[in-house]
Amino acid sequence: MNIDPKLDLVLERTLNVSTDKVWKAWTTPDLICKWFCPEPWKVTEAQIDLRPGGIFRTVMQSPEGQSFPNMGCILEVVPQKKLVWTDALLPDFRPAAHPESGAGLMFTASIQLEAAGDKTKFVAIARHGSEADKKKHEEMGFHQGWGICADQLERLMKG
Amino acid sequence: MNIDPKLDLVLERTLNVSTDKVWKAWTTPDLICKWFCPEPWKVTEAQIDLRPGGIFRTVMQSPEGQSFPNMGCILEVVPQKKLVWTDALLPDFRPAAHPESGAGLMFTASIQLEAAGDKTKFVAIARHGSEADKKKHEEMGFHQGWGICADQLERLMKG
Repeated sequence: MNIDPKLDLVLERTLNVSTDKVWKAWTTPDLICKWFCPEPWKVTEAQIDLRPGGIFRTVMQSPEGQSFPNMGCILEVVPQKKLVWTDALLPDFRPAAHPESGAGLMFTASIQLEAAGDKTKFVAIARHGSEADKKKHEEMGFHQGWGICADQLERLMKG
Repeated sequence: MNIDPKLDLVLERTLNVSTDKVWKAWTTPDLICKWFCPEPWKVTEAQIDLRPGGIFRTVMQSPEGQSFPNMGCILEVVPQKKLVWTDALLPDFRPAAHPESGAGLMFTASIQLEAAGDKTKFVAIARHGSEADKKKHEEMGFHQGWGICADQLERLMKG
């Protein structure tokens, strides 16, 4: 998987949901709105054009009501198996002049799914261009935040 | 093609070479070394892993012997028709901390080919993240440079 421990953050989980449902949760805007950021934050909008060069956009809202738009570009789509996107590019692969995400840093996210009986082995990798960005993302609570989201996804799709 | 005249540079040419040969010239490292920068500059190394996430790397050498490495990531490959890569990402889609190209700016290049009898309609689009980067690229001689390269490719592949 070409992970560089100095630059990358990794979260691994086994989700008690079928791969089909995990994929659906990741690729359906209406579902993204229900689990994609840790409560009490909300995702108020999601837009996904599921093809290389397509848009991956969400708007997150703080409990105080402030909105944080996130704009990215989808890079790779392997149905049921892999989804890659980045905020270093805008749709149509245009370089982003600055990171248009709430995180305020550039990273490429790679989500990989693998069936394990009725469950799904889930690996999320965040790739950064510098150790400073990796550290910033880690200190923002990457592991906890993505972990909570994984729990929310599991709860939603089991229900 | 989603071109934004404020941010993009476009070169269109009809090359007197078959689409098959133009594609070969663009995707074969040994051939890239023979035409990919305006003489008397040289390409001394080329490395291409022709898949999304794969490397697109060249080293250019000035007439004085100074080397300028260019590192990029391939984004889209449609054989005989389309090749897209960017220096905003490194291989495996990792964000580039800074542009690792001689141009010193980030852009995404999209090459599109279309057969026109024995000839090839060739369109090159350079997409930028800011008007400043577009202007810098234009002033560096984008149209002249890419035009000379297209002539060199045509001469090489006709021979």
